[in-house]
Amino acid sequence: MTMSSDKNRLNAQASGVYVIAATPFRDDGEVDWHSVDSLTDFYLEKGVTGLTILGMMGEAPKLSEEETSQVMARILKRVNGAVPVIVGVSHASNRHIAHLSKAAMDLGAAGVMVAPVSNLKTDDQVYGYYANVARMLGGDIPICLQDFPQVTGVHTSVAVILRLVDEFEQIVMLKHEDFPGMRKLSQVRQQSLDEGRRRISIMVGNGGLFLPQEMLRGADGAMTGFAYPEMLVQVCRLFAQGEPEAAEDLFNIYLPLLRHEFQYGIGLALRKETLRRRGAIRSAFVRKPGPVLDKWDHEELTRLIQRQDAALNP
Amino acid sequence: MTMSSDKNRLNAQASGVYVIAATPFRDDGEVDWHSVDSLTDFYLEKGVTGLTILGMMGEAPKLSEEETSQVMARILKRVNGAVPVIVGVSHASNRHIAHLSKAAMDLGAAGVMVAPVSNLKTDDQVYGYYANVARMLGGDIPICLQDFPQVTGVHTSVAVILRLVDEFEQIVMLKHEDFPGMRKLSQVRQQSLDEGRRRISIMVGNGGLFLPQEMLRGADGAMTGFAYPEMLVQVCRLFAQGEPEAAEDLFNIYLPLLRHEFQYGIGLALRKETLRRRGAIRSAFVRKPGPVLDKWDHEELTRLIQRQDAALNP
Amino acid sequence: MTMSSDKNRLNAQASGVYVIAATPFRDDGEVDWHSVDSLTDFYLEKGVTGLTILGMMGEAPKLSEEETSQVMARILKRVNGAVPVIVGVSHASNRHIAHLSKAAMDLGAAGVMVAPVSNLKTDDQVYGYYANVARMLGGDIPICLQDFPQVTGVHTSVAVILRLVDEFEQIVMLKHEDFPGMRKLSQVRQQSLDEGRRRISIMVGNGGLFLPQEMLRGADGAMTGFAYPEMLVQVCRLFAQGEPEAAEDLFNIYLPLLRHEFQYGIGLALRKETLRRRGAIRSAFVRKPGPVLDKWDHEELTRLIQRQDAALNP
Amino acid sequence: MTMSSDKNRLNAQASGVYVIAATPFRDDGEVDWHSVDSLTDFYLEKGVTGLTILGMMGEAPKLSEEETSQVMARILKRVNGAVPVIVGVSHASNRHIAHLSKAAMDLGAAGVMVAPVSNLKTDDQVYGYYANVARMLGGDIPICLQDFPQVTGVHTSVAVILRLVDEFEQIVMLKHEDFPGMRKLSQVRQQSLDEGRRRISIMVGNGGLFLPQEMLRGADGAMTGFAYPEMLVQVCRLFAQGEPEAAEDLFNIYLPLLRHEFQYGIGLALRKETLRRRGAIRSAFVRKPGPVLDKWDHEELTRLIQRQDAALNP
Repeated sequence: MTMSSDKNRLNAQASGVYVIAATPFRDDGEVDWHSVDSLTDFYLEKGVTGLTILGMMGEAPKLSEEETSQVMARILKRVNGAVPVIVGVSHASNRHIAHLSKAAMDLGAAGVMVAPVSNLKTDDQVYGYYANVARMLGGDIPICLQDFPQVTGVHTSVAVILRLVDEFEQIVMLKHEDFPGMRKLSQVRQQSLDEGRRRISIMVGNGGLFLPQEMLRGADGAMTGFAYPEMLVQVCRLFAQGEPEAAEDLFNIYLPLLRHEFQYGIGLALRKETLRRRGAIRSAFVRKPGPVLDKWDHEELTRLIQRQDAALNP
Repeated sequence: MTMSSDKNRLNAQASGVYVIAATPFRDDGEVDWHSVDSLTDFYLEKGVTGLTILGMMGEAPKLSEEETSQVMARILKRVNGAVPVIVGVSHASNRHIAHLSKAAMDLGAAGVMVAPVSNLKTDDQVYGYYANVARMLGGDIPICLQDFPQVTGVHTSVAVILRLVDEFEQIVMLKHEDFPGMRKLSQVRQQSLDEGRRRISIMVGNGGLFLPQEMLRGADGAMTGFAYPEMLVQVCRLFAQGEPEAAEDLFNIYLPLLRHEFQYGIGLALRKETLRRRGAIRSAFVRKPGPVLDKWDHEELTRLIQRQDAALNP
Repeated sequence: MTMSSDKNRLNAQASGVYVIAATPFRDDGEVDWHSVDSLTDFYLEKGVTGLTILGMMGEAPKLSEEETSQVMARILKRVNGAVPVIVGVSHASNRHIAHLSKAAMDLGAAGVMVAPVSNLKTDDQVYGYYANVARMLGGDIPICLQDFPQVTGVHTSVAVILRLVDEFEQIVMLKHEDFPGMRKLSQVRQQSLDEGRRRISIMVGNGGLFLPQEMLRGADGAMTGFAYPEMLVQVCRLFAQGEPEAAEDLFNIYLPLLRHEFQYGIGLALRKETLRRRGAIRSAFVRKPGPVLDKWDHEELTRLIQRQDAALNP
Repeated sequence: MTMSSDKNRLNAQASGVYVIAATPFRDDGEVDWHSVDSLTDFYLEKGVTGLTILGMMGEAPKLSEEETSQVMARILKRVNGAVPVIVGVSHASNRHIAHLSKAAMDLGAAGVMVAPVSNLKTDDQVYGYYANVARMLGGDIPICLQDFPQVTGVHTSVAVILRLVDEFEQIVMLKHEDFPGMRKLSQVRQQSLDEGRRRISIMVGNGGLFLPQEMLRGADGAMTGFAYPEMLVQVCRLFAQGEPEAAEDLFNIYLPLLRHEFQYGIGLALRKETLRRRGAIRSAFVRKPGPVLDKWDHEELTRLIQRQDAALNP
């Protein structure tokens, strides 16, 4: 057990790909510890800049508290400081967020990601929620705001984001997943600049569906779990090298499959199955209640993968 | 056709009961013009301070444009300046709001009521919507903001209300119908006071379910269509006379029936049926698709009315 | 630790008041074990027919797994078989529902209550969810369906309820909390009768706002946490004795306060504060994020309680 | 004015592209009649199989009744029987649906498209709504069911669709726009086949984002308004010719721009601007309240179009 080193502490300069890690299960529903390791290795081999674990797509709400601790410990040990690891700590109770965040940082996490509870409506309510969490966690735990209204039902305005950035130094990253949300991304960047604010890292979600456009609008990278993270890595690298056209050319080859995986709900089953086919995990099982692929879904996925392979190797 | 006289122009001093008027139909679905007149007379006889017509409970979205114009003209003519009449002008298109508002004012309306379109999420979006409407209508048309998130899905924060009040003199009334919403009412009042703002009129909705509590928190009256408006009138009068206990004693006699009518959807059918039984309209028909009372609903309503009559005449 | 005796096993003949138990905390947020006991005693003294613990209003989603186990064990021990205890086991993961249900039954629970996960849309999806849970739990664990669309967003149709009742003997109770939902209650009763179905117990929620009407429509009792459970008990008893008018007369005395507590969100804080004032618990603390009463809320509650006391002792 | 000829009457064999027609306005917000004609010509020149007018993306809710009639008459006259025209008639009032449908058919429309009102929850409610509309319109007006839960909030199950198809011969088409919704499409096809049902036409929406996958699952074509309808036409033609790989190769060249236009809200502004740039209309104006493109949006669109042009002409 090691304290999060300064090197891996999440900060506002973060860029690249913080892959949303799946949680692998066996066909009987138990956590597959062997696959937890192999999936972690897979992500590292594909060159990701960081990992984001225990998010919604990591089926975190379906893990027991003990499993949550074990998954966190196992992955952090396997990563062993190679890249920063962000831990999703969203919960109905602030006490639980505090408890889980401390545990994560003690194990060496780089920071935590927090989505709001679901009954927040006005700007003041959203601000108040995050301000309470930030104060509770204190200045030593870096925070990534998760803005995902399609699932949470909570709309975090540009004004709220900027106000939180002004008041809490520990908020260093925004996971931008509003849809459509490209203008919001531009507004956060532009208004920060206009008003001399601290620049935070912005990572985009939505499966990466608009990644090239978002990079051009000022995003720093992607935080998503597309089953071909090497593409995301290469696209971000090309953008960083000032080659947006090459980046988008590469992106577009994967776009048909990425768009396919973008489907809410069944997308997770498609993603796990693709990871399984690529040898990263041993079973594509999703905990119940959850999506299950049928014969047609399998054949459709096969065809899309074959078409992608053919496009990559013409 | 007369211009709205100064006397009846809606202003921030409005108080009492602005009854939400039903739109009476015949059993074949046509507007029942005879009942439009008799219902208007009924409201006036019960002592209401004003009328609010063409609101959601007035089935305005189910009227044709010609019917809308005719209903507006008929009621304004029947009222003939006796009390101010507010006209609901909410619409998907701003052009239509402008057109309908001008028509209403030309016919002698006291002001217009506007609910937001349904896809507004953040404070800036809600503010922006109303600011555009207020600018478009200009300073000469008094506006009542309709805050009814249960139906519109739009949450108008205290901050947005106060900002609008600061910037647009023509906004003179808030129809407060958030649920639960009593703290919001108190906050609008308290923050206005603390910051030396203009005081606007606040009329409460939600069928009047919390009327006594809301009056004590600073409401000026009720804007709802409970089928016994004489109770609302008397309760508001007693509050104005400094007799809150007597007011609430009276209110509580009607509370069982008022709570019954408070049910969304079927509440409108219950209200129209009660108005029919009281002789105010000839048919309780609600335009399709809409709620229809069954045998049990009728018997239940009969029993509640009988119990109320017995409580009033012990 | 005792197996649930046959006497207290939940069955379709259940009637009366299954009070929704609050979970008492200390001002520092820890579970207040002393108050858990005193609140249990309070409910028993007021004559409730049963307890429902670890529901949404019991702040179950804010308890740790250890606290959940401890609360369950503590209350079941304190009740000691005096009345049946239903345990809320709703969870994002079916595995967790299975685990918690078994633990509850092993400790002597009478049955479990299950609300659906939030992303179910069509009749088949809702049916499928419950059918899976019922099959997983098996025939030995009595189930209460919790129909609360205002919070879950899931609408369980009459057709789905009847289909589940037909196929799963262990489904013995419906917590009816749709709003408005009285016609639905009548339809479940009438269609069961018409088609010769098994009759299940129906307990009404929504704070009891329509309890008399619902009893006349065929409900068997109330499952709600109103801070004056003795009224609910007496009302149900009077209905059972064939005295609906006396029952409703009594109900109406409490209606103003009951309606006040009916407010979503802040209602829980009002309920806990009322229980505190009545000596049932030592602190009204609600875990964060959650509602907090301000000075005005306290005074308003005081006034409503005083008025109720005066009405009860004229 | 001509009655809808049998040739163009919508039937269950419909296939190809029924383009969702935009409604062109001038910069001052008035309907641009010149552009109505030129846009109609544009669609016809691109080879569409049919037109769908006065849908949500046609800003129908923002038209006055007179404008609605005029747009309908103008387009039907311009098309002059060249292809079938479906008219969107969704409305809060059934009376209005009846009135508008009759007017459309009298002017020569091929059929009408109906989306459900927004407060329907259970299977029986959705079925009941459509059954009432179908009975009201009678057997002579062909109906296309519009299944678009992202906007209406109403979820139409496979069971409801099949039940409606069984009972109402005039229901000949499903606009499939659930998201994700591919399994639903497969289930409608498979269950129809298994149970010997009448086969209806299925047209896909969602901007065509999954068109190739949906064609392979049994769709008959697309009903969407992508600003390059010639691609949709060619893709459907290639599928009809048994060349799915060539179809998808073509589709993928347009996918980056199609995905861009897929964004809710701003997508309409992007679509109109693209149509303007292509010379199909003179102004990209969207009626207020509505999306407005900023400088960045314009540049982003320019770049995506240039990239698409380059990919088409390498």
